[in-house]
Amino acid sequence: MSLLEETVDRIEGADTGAAEAAQRALDAKTKPRGSLGRLEELAVRVAGIRRTSDPGRLEAAVVVAAADHGVADEGVSAYPQEVTRQMLATFASGGSAVCVLAREAGAELRVVDAGVGRPTANIATGPAMSRDDAVRRIEEGIALARELDRDGVGVVALGEMGIANTTAAAAVAAALLSRAPADVCGRGTGLDDDGLARKVDVVTRALATNRADAADPIGVLAALGGFELAVLCGLALGAAAERMVVLVDGFITAAAALVAARLSPPAVDAMVAAHLSPEPGHGIVLEALGLTPLLDLGLRLGEGSGAALALPILDAALALLSDMATFETAGVTDAGR
Amino acid sequence: MSLLEETVDRIEGADTGAAEAAQRALDAKTKPRGSLGRLEELAVRVAGIRRTSDPGRLEAAVVVAAADHGVADEGVSAYPQEVTRQMLATFASGGSAVCVLAREAGAELRVVDAGVGRPTANIATGPAMSRDDAVRRIEEGIALARELDRDGVGVVALGEMGIANTTAAAAVAAALLSRAPADVCGRGTGLDDDGLARKVDVVTRALATNRADAADPIGVLAALGGFELAVLCGLALGAAAERMVVLVDGFITAAAALVAARLSPPAVDAMVAAHLSPEPGHGIVLEALGLTPLLDLGLRLGEGSGAALALPILDAALALLSDMATFETAGVTDAGR
Repeated sequence: MSLLEETVDRIEGADTGAAEAAQRALDAKTKPRGSLGRLEELAVRVAGIRRTSDPGRLEAAVVVAAADHGVADEGVSAYPQEVTRQMLATFASGGSAVCVLAREAGAELRVVDAGVGRPTANIATGPAMSRDDAVRRIEEGIALARELDRDGVGVVALGEMGIANTTAAAAVAAALLSRAPADVCGRGTGLDDDGLARKVDVVTRALATNRADAADPIGVLAALGGFELAVLCGLALGAAAERMVVLVDGFITAAAALVAARLSPPAVDAMVAAHLSPEPGHGIVLEALGLTPLLDLGLRLGEGSGAALALPILDAALALLSDMATFETAGVTDAGR
Repeated sequence: MSLLEETVDRIEGADTGAAEAAQRALDAKTKPRGSLGRLEELAVRVAGIRRTSDPGRLEAAVVVAAADHGVADEGVSAYPQEVTRQMLATFASGGSAVCVLAREAGAELRVVDAGVGRPTANIATGPAMSRDDAVRRIEEGIALARELDRDGVGVVALGEMGIANTTAAAAVAAALLSRAPADVCGRGTGLDDDGLARKVDVVTRALATNRADAADPIGVLAALGGFELAVLCGLALGAAAERMVVLVDGFITAAAALVAARLSPPAVDAMVAAHLSPEPGHGIVLEALGLTPLLDLGLRLGEGSGAALALPILDAALALLSDMATFETAGVTDAGR
């Protein structure tokens, strides 16, 4: 069995017993039932993922997968392709937004060069990569998840960098969800109206040229995706198999998570949507995944910035589950509501 | 001049020059213009409050003002009045939600006993307190703000505890905003339909009995408010005068902030709305203040829990402003968008 097949085989859904026990524990805390709203849902979800009623504090890693895209040649980004490599240097020196946010959250940052300077082929004229290439990158992501698990990481925040990668994500989302390109194409890092029209046209041509089958997620990923999307898809699958929390960032990471979900529907149980970006395809993909974002702050930077920003919310939810007093221990009268 | 008058006199609006300089600094960072969305707005707002283009990291304190309310006798809460005192003990032992969240955020927690066990009079049958009493509590809040400022605190998160205080907040909001009681009354910590109807009736009677003048905020606060609301109103005014950020929590703290805003309209410039609760009056008061909440996670606990949860978002915004590399220093090509 291949690493990918074996991993998909190992992914279980949430442990509902652990989740229910966590909810009972929260109901005994000194607060009206349910009054911590989505923080309670989040703690319960993580309990289900970790298969324990009290997951405690979790170490987090933000993984930024970076790659270049041949489709950048079509003029679908406001920035030139060289910016991918330049940003890789900024990740290394600690000056990018995700570096700052990961530090603030006490999370490790790992940058994966999935193909910077070695772009995929242009999806407007043919497949981005071969099927073998796609599987190889997915398996790289799985291997990374295993490594993170061995290092004691419990939360993997997905991040990405790649000029033109919202175009690839839009093509993947359109193909998997049978949506019109115009529904899932947005302005990315700052396209004007002409640029947006060009992007819709490029995705339309990519779909027509590649004719990828929505029932074949790896085929869609190979035809329309990108190297970082493939790594992130594998990372999500590997993390779900290792019972780690997968924190989804913006549109690109959500598209990668959607491919993972099509390869393994129970992998969605491990996912948490950090935020909603203004990119129109993001909400569509999250809805398809059945995920409601925690934050809605107009972030449209990518890099994993929204996921890193949501880490303290996740920490807070788990701290409440672990550390709050109960009505009984605190001697507080419980109205039982 | 009284401490209150002197404080109101000292409150300036935001420093627009510092705010604009902060936005220019953000525009030079390695990210598309505006792509950090509301984090940029937040950093710029704090720059205007602190009157410097780079406020750096700010120490935060969560202040929980606690008091009892005579109107609890009307059966407007799901919990008995003794819970206020019991929760005071839980704050002291570190086991309440706000204790956990303040610790997570690295913030100091200060609990102010504004009248626990010494309730206000029942607003359904007369004024909660005398006008002198209201001014005295406001000035206690102002004095606390000065003390926090001397201690190096830059962010004050408002919190509260007091069985029946959503009823007082609803009465204050209805009077100041000329809204019907049913618009601003919610289920608080868990009222059933009968309890909610009773609460609307109590607020209706309180408004009819007290006939407070919306143009006289201190009169409204004395007639319909509570001791913790008065302290929080003063804390907001004092913090605005000291150029501290005032982080507003749920409905009760928002009602106190509204009284402060009526006493000093520029005090609103110092305020940031941490979150939106399901309590219907909360959104109405925030809209009247012109504040858009950062989080919307269904929190309806009070204590300052939502404000404490938003502290890492505020920290993140300021860290991005201070620590991100610029296009120039990082050698990244700027598309100028």
